[in-house]
Amino acid sequence: MFQPQREPLSPEMHIFDRAIALKPQPDGIWQGHTSTDYANMIGPFGGMTAATALQALLIQPERLGDPVALTVNFAGPVRDGAFEVRVRMMRSSRTTQHWSVEIVQGDDCVINAIAVFALRRPTWSETEIVMPEVAPADTLPLVGNMMGVSWPQCYDMRFARGGLRGVDGTGDNPDSLTQLWINDKPPRALDFASLTAICDAFFPRLFSRRAQMVPIGTISLNIHFHADAATLAQQGSAPVLGVAQGQIYNLGFSDQVAQVWSAQGQLLATSQQAVWFKE
Amino acid sequence: MFQPQREPLSPEMHIFDRAIALKPQPDGIWQGHTSTDYANMIGPFGGMTAATALQALLIQPERLGDPVALTVNFAGPVRDGAFEVRVRMMRSSRTTQHWSVEIVQGDDCVINAIAVFALRRPTWSETEIVMPEVAPADTLPLVGNMMGVSWPQCYDMRFARGGLRGVDGTGDNPDSLTQLWINDKPPRALDFASLTAICDAFFPRLFSRRAQMVPIGTISLNIHFHADAATLAQQGSAPVLGVAQGQIYNLGFSDQVAQVWSAQGQLLATSQQAVWFKE
Repeated sequence: MFQPQREPLSPEMHIFDRAIALKPQPDGIWQGHTSTDYANMIGPFGGMTAATALQALLIQPERLGDPVALTVNFAGPVRDGAFEVRVRMMRSSRTTQHWSVEIVQGDDCVINAIAVFALRRPTWSETEIVMPEVAPADTLPLVGNMMGVSWPQCYDMRFARGGLRGVDGTGDNPDSLTQLWINDKPPRALDFASLTAICDAFFPRLFSRRAQMVPIGTISLNIHFHADAATLAQQGSAPVLGVAQGQIYNLGFSDQVAQVWSAQGQLLATSQQAVWFKE
Repeated sequence: MFQPQREPLSPEMHIFDRAIALKPQPDGIWQGHTSTDYANMIGPFGGMTAATALQALLIQPERLGDPVALTVNFAGPVRDGAFEVRVRMMRSSRTTQHWSVEIVQGDDCVINAIAVFALRRPTWSETEIVMPEVAPADTLPLVGNMMGVSWPQCYDMRFARGGLRGVDGTGDNPDSLTQLWINDKPPRALDFASLTAICDAFFPRLFSRRAQMVPIGTISLNIHFHADAATLAQQGSAPVLGVAQGQIYNLGFSDQVAQVWSAQGQLLATSQQAVWFKE
C-alpha cells in the first residue's frame, strides 16, 4: 500500500516519535532511520528498535485491536543509518491478527519479529502477582549520566531497589532484582510503542548482578501486553514501575523477566528476555 | 533441498517421534500429520505443534548449535490431518542463527514461529531462581485420565502442588501455582523437542485458579532453553519438575510463566505463555 511521502519530521515532535517514525515506500515497505538521541554504545538502543517494529504494525490500516504479544529477535547489529521494515499479515480473524515484521539493512535481516493483535474485551480479571511496595518516584534521586551512553538520558529513571553494579567496583550483588521508576524524558503519554521500549530499558541483569562489565547483547525480547489502548492513555505521562530479575546465566546466555506497573498498581506488561554474554 | 521420500514410520517408533515426524517435499517444504495419540479436545495438543515447529529446525542440515529461544504463535486452529512446514533461515553468523517457521494447512497459516539457535560455550554460570523443594516423583500419585482428553495420557504426571480446579467444584484456588513432575509415557530420553512440548503441558492457569471451565486457547508460547544437547542427553528419561504460575488474567488474555528443572536441580527451560480465554 503505497502512500505519498510524508512531510519532513517536525522539530517539535518528541524525540521518541522522531525515532520511531516510518516513511512509506513502494511495495508495502517502510523506511526508518536510527536516532542519535537513543544511541547505545554501538548502534541504537534495542528497545527503540523493538518499538519501531511494533510501530510498523500499529500504523497498518488493516491493523485490528491492540497488541497482545510481541517477540523481537535481534538477528544482527543495527548499524547507525537507514533501515527498511517489511510487514506481513499472516492470519486475520474477526478478533485476532497475526503478523511478522522484518527489519533489514542492505541484505541483512537485523530484526526478526512476530506479533499477535486482538480486540480486547472485558472478562473475569485478576492480577496474581503483587506490585512491590516502593518509595514514590518523586522521593528518589534521579539517575545521572550512565556510562556516557545517550539513550538512558532519554529516560527519567529512579532506582527504588538494585541498580548497576560493576561501576563502583564494590563486588557482586547477591541477586539482580531491580525496581525502577521510569518515564520518557521529556514526558510523553504512554502508548504501546513507548511501553515496548521501556520493557527493554532495565539493563541486562548481568550488569546488576556482577561487579564486572562483560560484552552483552539482547538476542530475544518477548512482551505480553495486559492493557488496552484506552487504559494506557489514562496513564498519561506518569512514571511506571519496572521490576526486573535474572533467572539464570549459563553457557553464554542469560534469561530475565520483567513486569511494568502503573503507579496505580495496574500490571501493564510482562516480558521475558534472552541476553547473549561473553565470559 | 529435496530428499527422497522416507520409509513409512516404523511401528516401534515412540509415539512422540511419530507425532513430530516430517517428510521432505520439494522446495524445502516439510509435511507432517497430526497424531491421534496427542489429540486435544479439538485438534492436536499445542505443545506437540510447537515441538514440531522446532523439529523442523533441528533437522535442517544447515542448523548450527542448539536452540536458545523459540516463540510459537498459534495463528489459528490446527485441523486433524496433514500440514506443511515452511522454514526460512533469516540470518546466520559463526555462532548464532535466526529462523522463521510457518505451519500451514491449505491457505491458512496456523503457526507463526521464530527461533534463535547458537553454539553454547562455557561461561560464568549462576541460577538465580531456586528450585522448589517437593516430594520425589515416585512418592506422589500418578494423575489419572483427565477430562477424557488423549494427550495427557502420553505423560506421566504427578502433582506436587496445585492441580486442576473446576473439576471437583470445590471453588477457586487462591493462586494458580502448580509444581508437577512430568515425563513422557512411555519414557523417552529428553531432547529439545520433548522439552518444548513439556513447556506447554502445564494446562492453562485459569483451569488451576478458577473453579469454572471456560473456553481457552494458547495464543503465544515463548521458551528460553538453558541447557545444551549434551546436558539434556544426560537427563535420560527421568522426570522433570515443571513449575507454572499465572501472572494476570485480564481483557480476554492471561499470562503464565513456567520453569522446567531436572531432578538434579538444573534449570533446563523457562517460558512465558499468553492464553486467550472467554468470559
